[in-house]
Amino acid sequence: MKIVGVDPGYAIVGVGILEYQNPRFQVLDYGAITTPAGMDFPDRLRIIYEDFIKILDMYQPNHIAIEKLFFTTNQKTAIDVAQARGIILLAASQRNVDVFEYTPLQVKQSVVGYGKAIKKQVMEMTTRILNLKEIPKPDDVADALAIAVCHAHTMSSKMNWMRLKQLHSQYQK
Amino acid sequence: MKIVGVDPGYAIVGVGILEYQNPRFQVLDYGAITTPAGMDFPDRLRIIYEDFIKILDMYQPNHIAIEKLFFTTNQKTAIDVAQARGIILLAASQRNVDVFEYTPLQVKQSVVGYGKAIKKQVMEMTTRILNLKEIPKPDDVADALAIAVCHAHTMSSKMNWMRLKQLHSQYQK
Repeated sequence: MKIVGVDPGYAIVGVGILEYQNPRFQVLDYGAITTPAGMDFPDRLRIIYEDFIKILDMYQPNHIAIEKLFFTTNQKTAIDVAQARGIILLAASQRNVDVFEYTPLQVKQSVVGYGKAIKKQVMEMTTRILNLKEIPKPDDVADALAIAVCHAHTMSSKMNWMRLKQLHSQYQK
Repeated sequence: MKIVGVDPGYAIVGVGILEYQNPRFQVLDYGAITTPAGMDFPDRLRIIYEDFIKILDMYQPNHIAIEKLFFTTNQKTAIDVAQARGIILLAASQRNVDVFEYTPLQVKQSVVGYGKAIKKQVMEMTTRILNLKEIPKPDDVADALAIAVCHAHTMSSKMNWMRLKQLHSQYQK
């Protein structure tokens, strides 16, 4: 299963692409879509759209995993992040790729096994799980890979659970 | 000058298209892009994108005027509205149409001449200015037309101001 993890943003969109065959991960690619600060906002969205569509066309993923948004202190930033996140969802729909959302808590629990893990622990664990030499930079990229790992874990535990139910129903017949 | 006014949303996007030759308005079209509640969110964004691109291609406007977002009580709704608004901005950039943003206060001041005007006053005034027989439905459409009127007024006062400055500088020579 090919998964694109996305850490949404308008200046930097973190992207990590994994192939997952339970329990093995293969990192296919990772990096950041970046847009210049001085550019008109609609044009920044266009860059995100064009780059992300290219990524989908190149890797043809089965699923996209993306961080769920919560609004906190900076309203202006939050609105702009949400506007940019909409572009990722649009591209997913246009390329017919299902989208799965995870909260930061879910990512921490899935990657580190502990919901109160700090950011650095999540990054170190992601790096270890994916057998990378160092923590990818910028943080947005490491976050995107963590979300992809979280989705892979979630999918595989769902599948294990289904297998268990199947076995159980066979046993009862 | 052809102006597309937009009241952003994900269930209903209000759209109003005006031709403005100071001081005359001609209403070219108005209506709502709607998306079904049960549909996956990314697919709802795709409908908004496709319909709005069609509108831009059909009317080839000079400018888009859109409501500025503020987040208030319902965070979930606000995030989804922002995501949908990003789609409008993307389409604008792809079709090379400049986008202008207005707050509800600016719209009220421009249309009614009074920042504390209630919604109904704005709608009635918009209907009168545009010489329509009745207030367009749903509200989102009336709002979109009001934003377009606000932009037309703003542009024309800017142009009057520039003309005044020009006259003034000629007079001083």
